[in-house]
Amino acid sequence: MKLASISYKGTDCIAVAIDDTNVIDIRDAMIAAFGNDTEIPVDMNHLLLQGDAGMAKLSSALDSARSNPETVTFIPISDVSWRAPVRKPGKICGVAMNNSASNGRKISAPDHPAFFLKPASCLIGHAEAITIRSYYGSVHPEPELAVIIGTTMRDVDAENAMDYIAGYSVMNDITGNGMRAEDLFQYWAIYAQEDDPDKTRRVEQHLSYAGRYKGTDTFGVLGPWLVTKDEISDPDNLAVECKVAGEIIAEDSTRYYNYRVAELISFISQFHTLHPGDIISCGTAFKASANRKSIHNANFQQVSGPVSVTIEGLGTQENPVVVENRTIGKWRLS
Amino acid sequence: MKLASISYKGTDCIAVAIDDTNVIDIRDAMIAAFGNDTEIPVDMNHLLLQGDAGMAKLSSALDSARSNPETVTFIPISDVSWRAPVRKPGKICGVAMNNSASNGRKISAPDHPAFFLKPASCLIGHAEAITIRSYYGSVHPEPELAVIIGTTMRDVDAENAMDYIAGYSVMNDITGNGMRAEDLFQYWAIYAQEDDPDKTRRVEQHLSYAGRYKGTDTFGVLGPWLVTKDEISDPDNLAVECKVAGEIIAEDSTRYYNYRVAELISFISQFHTLHPGDIISCGTAFKASANRKSIHNANFQQVSGPVSVTIEGLGTQENPVVVENRTIGKWRLS
Repeated sequence: MKLASISYKGTDCIAVAIDDTNVIDIRDAMIAAFGNDTEIPVDMNHLLLQGDAGMAKLSSALDSARSNPETVTFIPISDVSWRAPVRKPGKICGVAMNNSASNGRKISAPDHPAFFLKPASCLIGHAEAITIRSYYGSVHPEPELAVIIGTTMRDVDAENAMDYIAGYSVMNDITGNGMRAEDLFQYWAIYAQEDDPDKTRRVEQHLSYAGRYKGTDTFGVLGPWLVTKDEISDPDNLAVECKVAGEIIAEDSTRYYNYRVAELISFISQFHTLHPGDIISCGTAFKASANRKSIHNANFQQVSGPVSVTIEGLGTQENPVVVENRTIGKWRLS
Repeated sequence: MKLASISYKGTDCIAVAIDDTNVIDIRDAMIAAFGNDTEIPVDMNHLLLQGDAGMAKLSSALDSARSNPETVTFIPISDVSWRAPVRKPGKICGVAMNNSASNGRKISAPDHPAFFLKPASCLIGHAEAITIRSYYGSVHPEPELAVIIGTTMRDVDAENAMDYIAGYSVMNDITGNGMRAEDLFQYWAIYAQEDDPDKTRRVEQHLSYAGRYKGTDTFGVLGPWLVTKDEISDPDNLAVECKVAGEIIAEDSTRYYNYRVAELISFISQFHTLHPGDIISCGTAFKASANRKSIHNANFQQVSGPVSVTIEGLGTQENPVVVENRTIGKWRLS
C-alpha cells in the first residue's frame, strides 16, 4: 500500500492510494468495509502502533474499496495537501557519510555507522515550501532512503532486522552546511584514566553539533508516501535521483550505501530502542553522473528550486524553495 | 506546583505534590474540585498543550484539595515509581559547552550557542536504572538545568522568551564520551563557491555525531519534578550539585552558564519551532570544588553509582547504575 498523511478540504487524514491518480480517506474505506463501529486509526503513528493486524485490516478495506468503488469517495491526488507521512515520529536517526562516493574524502572515520538526530519539528511533506533564511548560510539537499519502523525493537540482529520495518519513504535531508562549519569545536576533553579513574588525562578533540544544521524547520522533507514493505523487494537496490530546477544533481542507488538497511537498523538497535513510527534516514545518495552538477552545487542561497527527489518504487517529492532575507539578532553568524 | 509523571499501583498518572511527603493524582484532585465531567489531561504533554488555562485550573484543584484533604487520596512519595515528567517530548535540545569552566579548554569555538538533540526514547525518571553496557566504553554524568517549553514559539527575543516556559526540571545528560571519541570524522567537505555555485571547493572539516553518545537508552534522567516557573524566581542563579556514590563531583551554579536561559531559547527559536513539552537542557554545570573529584572521574565503567543531581528549588534525582557485561556483534567497538 501507498499511505500518506494529507489534508483535504481542511481535514487531516490518512489516505491510501486506490489507483494512480486517486487516494481515499482510510476512515471512508474502513467504515465502508467494516461499518460505523470499527476502530479507525487517528493518525499514522496510531496505525503503526496497531502493527501487522492494523495493516492487514486496512489492506482488506482497500481491497473492498477497489471491488466496490461506489462505496468510497475518490480524492484526486492533485487536490490534496501533503504532510510528512509520519507527522510526529518519536525520533529520526540520520546516518552520516554512508555513501561509498564519500569514502575517498574521508581522512579518518569510524568503521561502524555513525548517526545524528533530526527533530520531528523539521518535517514537511511533498510540495510544502523549504524555507531558507539568509542567516542560515549555505544549504543543500541530500536525497535519502527513509526506513519507517513498525515494531518496537532492541538488540535485533541484521538477519532479523527487516521484520521490524513497516515501510519506506523518501527523505530530503536538507543540510545547512554553512551552519555546520559554524558549529565546530576544537577543545581539550578530559577523560578518566583507564587504570585509575581518580586521575584524568586531556585529549584534544574536534566536536561538531548538528542541532542547527540538520534540525532547522523545514530541513526534513518526507514523502509523499509511506510505501509498505511488501511493495519493496530489495531496499538495498533502489535507484535515487535528485533534481534542482529540473537539472539532475544526483543519480545514484541505495546499493552504494556502505551499510545495508538491515545492518543500519540492527546497529542502532544495539544503543536505542526503536519504536513504531521512528525513522532511519539511511544516508545521502549523492553520486553525480560524469560532467553533471552535484548536490554540492545546489546551495539554495544561490540556486533556485524546486528540488525533487525520486526513489524507485517510492515516488517523487518536489518542493519549492523560499529564501527569506532575514537577519538574526546580536549573534555573529553568516 | 511540583508535577510528576508517575506510576502508582500499576497505573500511570500525573501527580502533583500536596505536601513534602505526599502527592495526589491530578485526576483525583480535578474530579473532587470540578466533578466527574471535567476534562482531565491524560499525560503531561496534554496538560502542557492546555497552556496557562490548564495550569490555572489544576492549581485551583490543588488549592481545593489542600483545603479539603478528605476529598482526595494522599499517595506517599516513597511509594511511587517515577517516570520522566514529560515522557515523550517532541524534542530535547542539549546545549554544548555552555559552562564557563570549560571555556579555558576551548582551542576554537563558536561565539553563539551550539546544540545537539537527544531522543525521547533515552529518558528515564528519578530512581530508574541507568544501564551501561561494556561496549559503550567510558560514560559519565552531566548535571544540567532543563527548561520545559509551555507555549509554541518561533523567533522570540530573549526579552520575551521566559513567557514561553512552563517550568523547569533536573536533567542528567548521561554522556558516552567513549563513543564520542569513536564517532569522529575528518574529511574533505565540498562547498559551492560563493561567486559561482557551478564550481566547488574542498574544505578539511572535523565532524562528530552524537546519535550514540548522547542518545543511547537511559542516557537522559529527567526529574523528579516538573516545577512550574512561578516557583523559580531566577533560573540563572540556581545551585547545582552532583554526587556519585555519595561523593560530590560537581558543585556549581547556573549563573556560570555562558548563555542565560532566555538567550538559549531565543537563539534556538530562530531556527526551530519550539512546542509545548519540548525540552532545552542548558548545558553541564560541572565545576568541581578544589581538591574534589569531577564528573570526569565518574566513568561508570569503573565507578559504581548511584548518581544524584540536585538543583536548588527543583529537587534531587538519584539513580542506580547497572553495568551489563555485553558485547556487540561484528562491529569493532571498544
